[in-house]
Amino acid sequence: MDFSYITDNQKRFIDELTEFLRIPSISTLPEYKESVQQAAEWTASRLQHAGIEHVKVMETNGHPIVYGDWLHAEGAPTVLFYGHYDVQPAEPLDLWNSQPFEPVIENERIYARGATDMKANVLLPVIACETWLKDANTLPVNVKFLFEGEEEIGSPSLAGFMEENKELLRADAAISADSGRMEEDQPASMVSLRGLAGVQIDVRSAGGDLHSGLYGGAVPNSAQALARILDSLKHEDGTVAVEGFYDDVMERSDEEKETINATFSSDETFQQKAGVDRVYGEPGYTPGEQTLIRPTLDINGLWGGYQGIGVKTVIPAESHAKVTCRLVPNQDPEHVIDLIRRHVERHTPAEVDALVFPLEGKAYPYMLPEDHPGLKAVEEAVQHVEEKSPHQLRIGGSIPVAGLLQQLLDVHTVQLGYSVFDEGMHAPNEFYRLSQFEKGQKVYTRLLQELAEYLE
Amino acid sequence: MDFSYITDNQKRFIDELTEFLRIPSISTLPEYKESVQQAAEWTASRLQHAGIEHVKVMETNGHPIVYGDWLHAEGAPTVLFYGHYDVQPAEPLDLWNSQPFEPVIENERIYARGATDMKANVLLPVIACETWLKDANTLPVNVKFLFEGEEEIGSPSLAGFMEENKELLRADAAISADSGRMEEDQPASMVSLRGLAGVQIDVRSAGGDLHSGLYGGAVPNSAQALARILDSLKHEDGTVAVEGFYDDVMERSDEEKETINATFSSDETFQQKAGVDRVYGEPGYTPGEQTLIRPTLDINGLWGGYQGIGVKTVIPAESHAKVTCRLVPNQDPEHVIDLIRRHVERHTPAEVDALVFPLEGKAYPYMLPEDHPGLKAVEEAVQHVEEKSPHQLRIGGSIPVAGLLQQLLDVHTVQLGYSVFDEGMHAPNEFYRLSQFEKGQKVYTRLLQELAEYLE
Repeated sequence: MDFSYITDNQKRFIDELTEFLRIPSISTLPEYKESVQQAAEWTASRLQHAGIEHVKVMETNGHPIVYGDWLHAEGAPTVLFYGHYDVQPAEPLDLWNSQPFEPVIENERIYARGATDMKANVLLPVIACETWLKDANTLPVNVKFLFEGEEEIGSPSLAGFMEENKELLRADAAISADSGRMEEDQPASMVSLRGLAGVQIDVRSAGGDLHSGLYGGAVPNSAQALARILDSLKHEDGTVAVEGFYDDVMERSDEEKETINATFSSDETFQQKAGVDRVYGEPGYTPGEQTLIRPTLDINGLWGGYQGIGVKTVIPAESHAKVTCRLVPNQDPEHVIDLIRRHVERHTPAEVDALVFPLEGKAYPYMLPEDHPGLKAVEEAVQHVEEKSPHQLRIGGSIPVAGLLQQLLDVHTVQLGYSVFDEGMHAPNEFYRLSQFEKGQKVYTRLLQELAEYLE
Repeated sequence: MDFSYITDNQKRFIDELTEFLRIPSISTLPEYKESVQQAAEWTASRLQHAGIEHVKVMETNGHPIVYGDWLHAEGAPTVLFYGHYDVQPAEPLDLWNSQPFEPVIENERIYARGATDMKANVLLPVIACETWLKDANTLPVNVKFLFEGEEEIGSPSLAGFMEENKELLRADAAISADSGRMEEDQPASMVSLRGLAGVQIDVRSAGGDLHSGLYGGAVPNSAQALARILDSLKHEDGTVAVEGFYDDVMERSDEEKETINATFSSDETFQQKAGVDRVYGEPGYTPGEQTLIRPTLDINGLWGGYQGIGVKTVIPAESHAKVTCRLVPNQDPEHVIDLIRRHVERHTPAEVDALVFPLEGKAYPYMLPEDHPGLKAVEEAVQHVEEKSPHQLRIGGSIPVAGLLQQLLDVHTVQLGYSVFDEGMHAPNEFYRLSQFEKGQKVYTRLLQELAEYLE
């Protein structure tokens, strides 16, 4: 397969991307519900235009999921392509140099909300399939597409959808285009993500706030009790004190640690970026290991009582905290929430009541096996087009899909996207490099062929 | 001295009180600055009308202080009368049955903001002096008046004013009319108040909030560090863990504790009023002792990071808490703040910075010596008019004046007011009983004579 179809049609692909970016598919804001629907329909129609069959806009409790497939490669493996068509809000608007939903091309970059996260990447597997179907009238593998509209709000409908459509989504491997690289000229595949589990802790010490002159000394204080509970969550040395927290944690190989440490920034650079005076964390691990392959527990917020100017001598009846954990294989978000709940029960002072309830937005940790054939296929395809081998990236953040696919469908996900991490994801003046767009189309086109070979 | 002058002029006194109550002298709201000034001038003019000399409206950095004296009782003791002419804001207005600054008399009660706290009480010593000066053309003691306009905002100018006017304010005893009783038919003198000292604790862990996916595990968390600091402030059993906190605390006599426990509500009633399931506090002390004669430390508020709906995986760079202590003799507010600062320094985790700064509104604790002759004088005067002996009330709250007079002028304060604690102080539909008004005038008139005898 040569890439002449891609070259010949590049102007049209950019026009299509521009059209796609004009739809303000902001999943988090209810007033954009229709636009999100419109983006789903646009995606479905684009799939059909590429020659994909059985294209459906499928309803969920939230925004719809777009499905499509082409299953005529008899005896060949089946690949599931994942992406999301929703975007983040564009605020703060005054920091944009152009309108976020009126794409502008300048210096071979297209500026718009959703450009790099991830509408351009969404088109890569679609264009790759179109290229094969137009040029060769066939595909080397069977393909399925799963495009969701809720990634930016934590994919709340995705797990349920997968459970209900296990047969429809069955595949030998998944490829997620919701990915990228650190530098423009260094390709990368994300092979490890941390999971996420969170709780809110609500402490109550009385029926209402009390005057410290009248009651102070003889009644409990919710804020004092919350401090005790929160303090009990971590040891002084930075390790998590929740009983059983580390039990399931996968210890990573020395080689993996070496790889991480070789590519991670120096402590000095890391401190500078974080704006901290010193690194601090689990003893025995480097900052790279701590942030990429070790689990964490962080208080994200806390509040209670009087927070204004001056003095108000109140004994707060209620105090609250939000706590989230980044998880690593083989930790389970539900189990971690349960461990925290039990820990809080054991560490709640007898004079108050504390409730722990799970926060939305849990994600399973994910790690692609080093020897997964899909990774080999990606390496070959990237090498062929870019003449460089992709780095294996570990990410400290969380994206639900890969963990869910593994947990619920037993499918591994190779993550290959053409975003570069300087392209303003979630920020004003988000953009995407058009050179990456074309390169990504070529790599994905080649990838179909490599997948046919390696997934056998 | 009989009380016919008081009886004959009662209607006028009520009219004057009504006039006084019409002035919205809300010290806390800048837009009422002129009204506060007007109330000061009204007070000064009322003093002059009573026959008091050298009446001055004296400027401070805040609202003015009204001074006046009558010093012709040669060889007799000098008594300083204290009161405040400012009031609390009237909000919430929709809970008032009448306009807060349009006094209404119903069922022998006068309804208005400031009625019981404390404009009616302000008039008691003024009317008492007027009664003597009209009837006898003299006073049995020398008198001085100190009426401030900032009590409701914590008396920020009072200490400075006292320091600058030590000679002017010199007296053998002070009588504060900013006081009251629990029940209408049981007279009381407040003989003990707790002091107040407060700090804000600001913890900083980074230059800005950090993403827990990118940095979680290798950077400190200000909220976690704050929890550690706050937890260190108190022991599990409810005692304060700040080193040196109890060093200066005066241990009270068994008799005093017996008095307290005999009159304090039952644990059950106390719990019900507080809306708590169990009493909780310093072991070895009853709730009455804990709230009236023992010092406390309470977190009044805490905040940091994300407090909204759902999840935001932020590592908060800054977290804050407000902490105040109720103090007892012989604790010093400045010293307690210093102890807290040193404690926080010792208990701040090495990975963060913590700052402690004092909050406004400190107050010295106060205790009138049991055998103070002013208390005897009050007892005699009350007994004469009410035919009952006043209870000695201990109060867990804080009023700055008595502690300041003792600390700065070495003058003890006897506290006798005719408010009843069900009269809606600081609340909607505040009122004052007119029967108490007249009774208070008579007691204060008699009191001048008793003071002449006992203070010798």
